[in-house]
Amino acid sequence: MEKSAEFLTRDQILIATEETLRRYGVAKTSVTDVAKALNVSHGTLYRHFKSKAELLEGATAKWLDEKIIRPLKDVCHDPSLEGALHLKTYLQTLIGLKQHYAREDEELFTMYAKVTEESAELIDQHVGHLIEQMSEILIRGAIQADNPARLARTIFYATSRFHHPAHAYEWKHANMEQEFADVWTLIEKGFL
Amino acid sequence: MEKSAEFLTRDQILIATEETLRRYGVAKTSVTDVAKALNVSHGTLYRHFKSKAELLEGATAKWLDEKIIRPLKDVCHDPSLEGALHLKTYLQTLIGLKQHYAREDEELFTMYAKVTEESAELIDQHVGHLIEQMSEILIRGAIQADNPARLARTIFYATSRFHHPAHAYEWKHANMEQEFADVWTLIEKGFL
Repeated sequence: MEKSAEFLTRDQILIATEETLRRYGVAKTSVTDVAKALNVSHGTLYRHFKSKAELLEGATAKWLDEKIIRPLKDVCHDPSLEGALHLKTYLQTLIGLKQHYAREDEELFTMYAKVTEESAELIDQHVGHLIEQMSEILIRGAIQADNPARLARTIFYATSRFHHPAHAYEWKHANMEQEFADVWTLIEKGFL
Repeated sequence: MEKSAEFLTRDQILIATEETLRRYGVAKTSVTDVAKALNVSHGTLYRHFKSKAELLEGATAKWLDEKIIRPLKDVCHDPSLEGALHLKTYLQTLIGLKQHYAREDEELFTMYAKVTEESAELIDQHVGHLIEQMSEILIRGAIQADNPARLARTIFYATSRFHHPAHAYEWKHANMEQEFADVWTLIEKGFL
């Protein structure tokens, strides 16, 4: 018997979407597969998400929030860190998380990489969130900048090679850590 | 009648490959299509290139040399430029060329982006070439660096967002030029 659509929450749908994606992969998962996993009709699911694209966006927003933004919040509020080292630790954590999930949660990382290319608005929001956290660190560390958000964004772009999902295929190289350290030394001299 | 295989040069094959790619696109072009365009058999072509992957690598190497490396050589040897401004002009030219061809030579740019992901050795060579040119500029401009090649590579990586083909989908944004200027100001302070 079909579950009542009224009791189906957005979060339940997204959890089922994640499970289905991990099982079948991004390319092969359909809205019908997710409906089947939830034991509801395609039409019931459609009341919450109008297309596979919307479903992937919802799952990506949830995934980014849980896997990336939340652990970064802890680094952001770590009272033992300050100034340039605080910002470096923040970026190293961001890079470590991205590289970890590219290896260990391959299907959902592929989803995130695909959505990054296709859903500018969602990704702008996510990047905006990271820039906000970085700005807070700059301000708390009393790092001089006319416009902390603009400096944060510039530092974020200068380190794209290490955290942007389009570079994931390069992250297996052994010298990634050294290359980030070199870029960091260069830009740190630029803002200190 | 089939042309004699002895008179078929590597360059003729690559020119025919380019034309075929522009007509059918990277996904749909086959080795047989290129053989047909040259009026030779599949076997004759096979004596020069063993697979579609090899054909694409050959065409990419030629394309990068003609479209990217050669015009950069002129910037590299421009006697009116010196020091940090010389390097900035070099990078702006590299970025301008990449962004121009992403728009105006879409099929061959797609080929280059695909080969970038799949043929590490060829791309390492290409990047090595760019790093060499950048190192020359640093040395000629008497910019202090213990290791000019390492500094050049670090600057190259810090500007990936603006010239790495995986970012091509972002280049249509209106604020790309300002964002590069911001990153440049940051890293320039780091090495001057």
